[in-house]
Amino acid sequence: ALTGNVNIFYYAAMEEVTGAQLIAEALKTQNVEFMFGIVGVPIIEVAMAAQAAGIKYVGMRNEQAVEACRLYSKFSARPGSLEAIPSVVEKAVRTSMYGRPGACYVDISGDMVNAKVNRIVSCCPPPPVSLADNTAITEAISVLKGAKRPLVIIGKGAAYGRAESALRALVEVSGLPFIPTPMGKGVLPDNHPNCVAAARSRALLQADVVLLLGARLNWILHFGLPPRFDPHVKVIQVDLCAEEMGNNVRPAVALLGDVNAVVTQLLESVRKDGWKYPFNTEWWSALKEKIAANAKISKALALQSAVPMNYYTVFHHISQLLPGDCVIVSEGANTMDIGRTMLNNSLPRHRLDAGTFGTMGVGLGFAIAAASVEKSQNTGRRVVCVEGDSAFGFSGMEVETMCRYNLPVIIIVVNNNGIYSGVDPETWKEMAKMGDLTTIAPPVTLLPEARYDEVMTAFGGRGFLVRTVEELRSALKLSLSDWERPSLLNVLIDPASDRKQQEFPWLTRSNL
Amino acid sequence: ALTGNVNIFYYAAMEEVTGAQLIAEALKTQNVEFMFGIVGVPIIEVAMAAQAAGIKYVGMRNEQAVEACRLYSKFSARPGSLEAIPSVVEKAVRTSMYGRPGACYVDISGDMVNAKVNRIVSCCPPPPVSLADNTAITEAISVLKGAKRPLVIIGKGAAYGRAESALRALVEVSGLPFIPTPMGKGVLPDNHPNCVAAARSRALLQADVVLLLGARLNWILHFGLPPRFDPHVKVIQVDLCAEEMGNNVRPAVALLGDVNAVVTQLLESVRKDGWKYPFNTEWWSALKEKIAANAKISKALALQSAVPMNYYTVFHHISQLLPGDCVIVSEGANTMDIGRTMLNNSLPRHRLDAGTFGTMGVGLGFAIAAASVEKSQNTGRRVVCVEGDSAFGFSGMEVETMCRYNLPVIIIVVNNNGIYSGVDPETWKEMAKMGDLTTIAPPVTLLPEARYDEVMTAFGGRGFLVRTVEELRSALKLSLSDWERPSLLNVLIDPASDRKQQEFPWLTRSNL
Amino acid sequence: ALTGNVNIFYYAAMEEVTGAQLIAEALKTQNVEFMFGIVGVPIIEVAMAAQAAGIKYVGMRNEQAVEACRLYSKFSARPGSLEAIPSVVEKAVRTSMYGRPGACYVDISGDMVNAKVNRIVSCCPPPPVSLADNTAITEAISVLKGAKRPLVIIGKGAAYGRAESALRALVEVSGLPFIPTPMGKGVLPDNHPNCVAAARSRALLQADVVLLLGARLNWILHFGLPPRFDPHVKVIQVDLCAEEMGNNVRPAVALLGDVNAVVTQLLESVRKDGWKYPFNTEWWSALKEKIAANAKISKALALQSAVPMNYYTVFHHISQLLPGDCVIVSEGANTMDIGRTMLNNSLPRHRLDAGTFGTMGVGLGFAIAAASVEKSQNTGRRVVCVEGDSAFGFSGMEVETMCRYNLPVIIIVVNNNGIYSGVDPETWKEMAKMGDLTTIAPPVTLLPEARYDEVMTAFGGRGFLVRTVEELRSALKLSLSDWERPSLLNVLIDPASDRKQQEFPWLTRSNL
Amino acid sequence: ALTGNVNIFYYAAMEEVTGAQLIAEALKTQNVEFMFGIVGVPIIEVAMAAQAAGIKYVGMRNEQAVEACRLYSKFSARPGSLEAIPSVVEKAVRTSMYGRPGACYVDISGDMVNAKVNRIVSCCPPPPVSLADNTAITEAISVLKGAKRPLVIIGKGAAYGRAESALRALVEVSGLPFIPTPMGKGVLPDNHPNCVAAARSRALLQADVVLLLGARLNWILHFGLPPRFDPHVKVIQVDLCAEEMGNNVRPAVALLGDVNAVVTQLLESVRKDGWKYPFNTEWWSALKEKIAANAKISKALALQSAVPMNYYTVFHHISQLLPGDCVIVSEGANTMDIGRTMLNNSLPRHRLDAGTFGTMGVGLGFAIAAASVEKSQNTGRRVVCVEGDSAFGFSGMEVETMCRYNLPVIIIVVNNNGIYSGVDPETWKEMAKMGDLTTIAPPVTLLPEARYDEVMTAFGGRGFLVRTVEELRSALKLSLSDWERPSLLNVLIDPASDRKQQEFPWLTRSNL
Repeated sequence: ALTGNVNIFYYAAMEEVTGAQLIAEALKTQNVEFMFGIVGVPIIEVAMAAQAAGIKYVGMRNEQAVEACRLYSKFSARPGSLEAIPSVVEKAVRTSMYGRPGACYVDISGDMVNAKVNRIVSCCPPPPVSLADNTAITEAISVLKGAKRPLVIIGKGAAYGRAESALRALVEVSGLPFIPTPMGKGVLPDNHPNCVAAARSRALLQADVVLLLGARLNWILHFGLPPRFDPHVKVIQVDLCAEEMGNNVRPAVALLGDVNAVVTQLLESVRKDGWKYPFNTEWWSALKEKIAANAKISKALALQSAVPMNYYTVFHHISQLLPGDCVIVSEGANTMDIGRTMLNNSLPRHRLDAGTFGTMGVGLGFAIAAASVEKSQNTGRRVVCVEGDSAFGFSGMEVETMCRYNLPVIIIVVNNNGIYSGVDPETWKEMAKMGDLTTIAPPVTLLPEARYDEVMTAFGGRGFLVRTVEELRSALKLSLSDWERPSLLNVLIDPASDRKQQEFPWLTRSNL
Repeated sequence: ALTGNVNIFYYAAMEEVTGAQLIAEALKTQNVEFMFGIVGVPIIEVAMAAQAAGIKYVGMRNEQAVEACRLYSKFSARPGSLEAIPSVVEKAVRTSMYGRPGACYVDISGDMVNAKVNRIVSCCPPPPVSLADNTAITEAISVLKGAKRPLVIIGKGAAYGRAESALRALVEVSGLPFIPTPMGKGVLPDNHPNCVAAARSRALLQADVVLLLGARLNWILHFGLPPRFDPHVKVIQVDLCAEEMGNNVRPAVALLGDVNAVVTQLLESVRKDGWKYPFNTEWWSALKEKIAANAKISKALALQSAVPMNYYTVFHHISQLLPGDCVIVSEGANTMDIGRTMLNNSLPRHRLDAGTFGTMGVGLGFAIAAASVEKSQNTGRRVVCVEGDSAFGFSGMEVETMCRYNLPVIIIVVNNNGIYSGVDPETWKEMAKMGDLTTIAPPVTLLPEARYDEVMTAFGGRGFLVRTVEELRSALKLSLSDWERPSLLNVLIDPASDRKQQEFPWLTRSNL
Repeated sequence: ALTGNVNIFYYAAMEEVTGAQLIAEALKTQNVEFMFGIVGVPIIEVAMAAQAAGIKYVGMRNEQAVEACRLYSKFSARPGSLEAIPSVVEKAVRTSMYGRPGACYVDISGDMVNAKVNRIVSCCPPPPVSLADNTAITEAISVLKGAKRPLVIIGKGAAYGRAESALRALVEVSGLPFIPTPMGKGVLPDNHPNCVAAARSRALLQADVVLLLGARLNWILHFGLPPRFDPHVKVIQVDLCAEEMGNNVRPAVALLGDVNAVVTQLLESVRKDGWKYPFNTEWWSALKEKIAANAKISKALALQSAVPMNYYTVFHHISQLLPGDCVIVSEGANTMDIGRTMLNNSLPRHRLDAGTFGTMGVGLGFAIAAASVEKSQNTGRRVVCVEGDSAFGFSGMEVETMCRYNLPVIIIVVNNNGIYSGVDPETWKEMAKMGDLTTIAPPVTLLPEARYDEVMTAFGGRGFLVRTVEELRSALKLSLSDWERPSLLNVLIDPASDRKQQEFPWLTRSNL
Repeated sequence: ALTGNVNIFYYAAMEEVTGAQLIAEALKTQNVEFMFGIVGVPIIEVAMAAQAAGIKYVGMRNEQAVEACRLYSKFSARPGSLEAIPSVVEKAVRTSMYGRPGACYVDISGDMVNAKVNRIVSCCPPPPVSLADNTAITEAISVLKGAKRPLVIIGKGAAYGRAESALRALVEVSGLPFIPTPMGKGVLPDNHPNCVAAARSRALLQADVVLLLGARLNWILHFGLPPRFDPHVKVIQVDLCAEEMGNNVRPAVALLGDVNAVVTQLLESVRKDGWKYPFNTEWWSALKEKIAANAKISKALALQSAVPMNYYTVFHHISQLLPGDCVIVSEGANTMDIGRTMLNNSLPRHRLDAGTFGTMGVGLGFAIAAASVEKSQNTGRRVVCVEGDSAFGFSGMEVETMCRYNLPVIIIVVNNNGIYSGVDPETWKEMAKMGDLTTIAPPVTLLPEARYDEVMTAFGGRGFLVRTVEELRSALKLSLSDWERPSLLNVLIDPASDRKQQEFPWLTRSNL
């Protein structure tokens, strides 16, 4: 549902009724359904005008992404006159959806009052679609057919492009193994038999041909380079953005076009050709073996019954109880990384990560936006927000917003008393006795066993302090059964818990 | 204590031990005592190196002012080599203190590793001082002597310049009435007999000569223009920044120099001259009369015993109980405005407002910084943070930081269920029954009777829900007696409470 | 030949031999053939390294477009290490060519010395190609077939996309009338029977269906809006940039893809369909009639024999003598506008205008670049630079560069003694007698009959002062016969000469 | 006369008569006498309105500093309404003059039409003046008295501050040796007996106390660091900008205040004290000896009679003929450096260099501005512009502007056929025969013996080709005798001529 967003930043004096209505109507005309903002004197009129125009207004507590949006936006404008607002808003909404989706920024001055509007601007049509060159499609098929160890990587471009049906057919007809990127999860279900995400590192390292669908070879995919990739890997790159082609790795074949359209072209060619990558290959055996081995280790960790729990136990039980169609929002370090592997998605565009830039503090805002949409459309889908304790602190006061609007978001704080890792309460007490904590306490520690659950109950939501598997399962079930209020599960884990041994550590942004 | 600040923004890979040590040592050399930051992979090493170098590290939960700092900084630099770091840090610290104080920004890349440092950079000396031209001093005295309705305005420049002793002598020797700006409060005590802050609007409007000490004629002082000032007012402007002279109003006399030095020059001249503005003037009578009338109205409001309370009752009782030497931090709309008039300061540099740009969300960070300093220096002074409920939401999670370091900050949330004004719980319930709150609820409303006090207890601090005068007094006394933990008083007031009728509404930033 | 450009801006100390070689080699690897720059201490080494690597170096006198390039660039980067230079250069070259062509900016610091390079970056392959959706092609054909007054507009996107062969076939098979934009001139020859450029205003105003090929609906095309276009016109928009679709006018059909590929798709559909727009329509008659009428007026103006000459006479004779394959560069106000209609192009990518932003001073630089390429490839093509006298002044000293490298550029300065219009020598002398010229002289006047031709002879080129048709023809013939030296024709025209009466004035940038 | 400047950048449509008048009047009110600009459609109205308001308009050919101005300006603003223009212009003019002088930038949009102006803004008064702290003055005197090898450095701050009278008295009363920075030349005459500029390197290196008057310790002064300064040198820094104090070198005493006022304070203290630095010291002997030795070398070079001439010969004869009160403008590499030592100034603010940033191409613009002022005030002073041949090429077309307005500027192009150094005509011809010059010619070469003099004659000015001393003297005398027309002396020197051997090479910006 969220393929782009437009931020209307507005500063103005109180009198500007006409300007406010105009902005509201311009947004409504572009089918904007929700406005999220912080109210201050100048914004009140716009928010009220938006409500009057039938737009839903969700008042937030803090909006730290605004400045960032402006810096990273695809298009930013400052209309020179009131008459220009409708077309600037149309251009912003259109630009946010056409081509590669992205934020746009409209900065509206308050000096625009009492003007008349002469020009009607209708809503922009859906994005146009382009196809890959047929010669290149033929080449791609030829490269795929020559592959010994092929791999499909499904990126968020495939999700944005709504390629799920065509892609399922392509994967099943061709018999190819696939892995998703974090935001590509769910385009095909994580439990699809061809999904080899549980052998991700092995698959990336040994693949000789990669079909890269709407994914960037950035830090999330280790730049496509050794030691995480074979230096001789052939990449068939599918993207709608020409400038993305060849970033970091020169593709063997570049298929420029709408991901859904290009996947459909590939599917038709494969079907005509009748080719299928056989299941009885060494590659499939190696991958399946690795998946089984990893599953065994994860399962062993997941079934540990010690208190405090470890990450794997926590995610194992969450995973068992979450409905298949829920929207999962996630941010944090280990919490986000392990959650990516342990929490399955079965539907496209149902996972929202902190994303490419690793910005902390966006999770609760994403969850509020998603829950507002699901509630408004009465979909019966839950929004679950899995947060590290440090990440939660960036915008934890937004739980008041959830309570205010009765949004039944379930927040699970995986609490290890720190950033990367904290200390247990006893150690903390000992340190405090030794002197000034600003001098002694490791910079990564937070207050042990902080009661984030009580931050939720402070505003009338449900709060659960969770130490054991039983408490976790019970609290999650109760939360899922309550459609009227948000819940927060404060899951205390072993501060020393960590990811299981990795062949290669996941590259985090800071390693760049 | 805080007259400038340097933000060291650091991004780096893990290996850069040498760089981290170098940064820490450069800061230590410049007598930086505290580092405030958010920990992420790259910052850990710097924070640890800082602790090793004897700098106190206070880990925060969110630091939204960083981006703003960069944009508004006096000086920003990106050292081109590791060797350059000490001199760049010295320049940043120096520039933040010399001339008009302000933030500086140093952006250190992580590519600077394993280099050797050859150049020693010692700590910068205190800022140099300049004096006003003697001719201009003579002119100023002459203008003052010709005044029928003189007024001294004490700005934050007088506080930064540590002009308190000289200024007290000048005011007492000359017999002039004065008012402080928000950050100028306390340079002379608010209860000084010459303080006419309680007749602020009248004093500004009718003064024929204004001695402006380190204050900008910006929105906080209504730009020095009609209808809030006499169009013929003569301004004697004292400032250390030449470029500030004449902004908005052309001064009758411009005294360029260090505020303390210039005040001393004026004092010497007045003493030599033997002049004193007499107390038995119409001007003093008019001001005293207005003060008495305003006091009567405020007192009437303050003594109302209805529940829920109004703003004046709340501030009246807070004001009675706060120790004279406490540091007051404040942000919000009505809360900050009324608090400026009702909460007295008796010491300079003991009030921190959201400030010139009206940025919300900085209050708790200011309070943590102030409390860290007071605790470290064992001054026995309390830090009291008076917040509107909306303002608190911007960075409320920082209460965990206060609990983590046992900083005994007292937060008073003046809670009117909204921004500018909210609704009571019953009205809210009625609205919720009527349909989707995003469509119906006024954009200015927050959740009624939100338990901000429980956000504090969630982390081990003291929380108080306050509805009555008795509860308010009791909770504040208890908080003041506890030196180990922070407290939060969630003071529920009438959502319809407002400022008393103003002759002119205080200009808020949004009216610009 | 010029579809994109990369500006390497370099600042450095003298020692950095290794860095200079690395930059030179990185550029050479990306098949960069020419480097244009201004030499200063830091650049010398790079320029010499470039020459050593086989890149041709053209030293310029001033390079005022540098700053502009940085502001408008598609991609700008500042490599963090010497090792990063080859990949950053590769990305810059690639990005400048892929998608919509544009400048890229690489800012290389001089601190990068003596490092070793470990990573080989090969030259980027040619841009990938995408096709339009077949459904949209079908719709486009259907809209075209329903047109009563169709028009093809050929933009510079068609030139960049090298669509000339397919487009000629499409126009001839379909029988459609066309007009080029300034930089689209020559994709099909201006003298093609289907070209209706001579009835441009009429064609734009009355067309009911426009096939827009790689052209923006910006000020050059009057935004596609009334009063210059029919408000009900249906636009079939062909562009490789999704974000361009719908700018200013919502297209009836959006064909997203490589212009050449899409034109080929359209051609195949038209061929299959067998449709052709008949020649015996009212539309063709109206257009032909208008062309004839305009030709008559222009011819009348062109054949005037008065001295001083008017614009039309000058361009008429130039047009008769220029070889069909010459490259025409142009800048100025009337000079550029009238030259667009009077000087024919018969080959694509052979006209360079001051362009979208109307920046003055780029013409001579364009001419030097074009002449360097033509000379180096020994094509036998001439570069002719038609300049207004004011435009020439922006970078007139570059004639020394032409003389230094023996580039046989022909510069024709159409000299009306001013900007828009000047005064004759006698009037000027009268004004000078009246008093201080800075007070009296109209701001648009330049020195009458300035001898720009002598600026050329000062450096050894050929200079001609031209007042009559005979002198013009003779000078141009002589210039065309000299392949060793540049020439400058200083063509004095009537300062009061203007464009012929326009139905609508051509929109210049300043009218936006 | 030019201590600050305001650039009004204006973009607008044609109709905005009112806006143009308002801008013109606002400038006139601030006593702006001249406007320099490039005319385009939008500017014409402003230029005409300026003339109507009594401002002199000088139309230029190119204005490449505009973008730079914006980036480096002290203050930049974009008025939000027409009513705001007068106060924004006042603030820009005021800010450019108050504190450290600098450019300001006002960007006026064309959307501001037909509004009424309600607020009168009068002209800003002269800058306020501040004094140094008396304690610091006492310390400074004490440090000076303890000096064995004292040195005064006179910077452009002393020139801007009009400190010449007080400074002459201070130098003569105290008997101290001094050197000027390039823009500080003339505050005291270069031929003053205490001037030791001819022993500059020695003086800087061995001074044990430096009195630094309004000069930055930047690259022009080698950052005040070894090996060019004694590491133990004590600096008494006088500056009106607190933030400048301590840059690069920590001062022994910082005297913050107006340079003229502080020099007066020092003078009074020295007078009271009766102290004088004796002339019979080793320091004076060493300096005088070095001056004599340098003079001998320079004289030997200057008296060489070979053709082509060398730099010293050229400057020696120029120096002999120039009137003492002329304004010298200079840019180039060797030309500017050697000219600084060989061309004497006897009046303050009569030298304009390319300046701190070393920007080429500003010289002719400076000369036009200076000549416009001198002509308008009928001062009888000449403006002489000494340019390197490469520097001249950046804006050589501005000679037309000089001719247009009959500004009798004398341009001396010191022509060595290249940048740093070129080749002679015979060598060039040989190279041209060897192949493609873009491959062979050193990047630093320009066309040998280019006739820059003919660029001047092309527009009606006087041009001289100069090869010998006799031709030089004759041409300069003729130029000086002509008050109606500009002249250009194209002085051909030996392409191999260079500066005499330096103990340390002058640091140019590129060595940073």
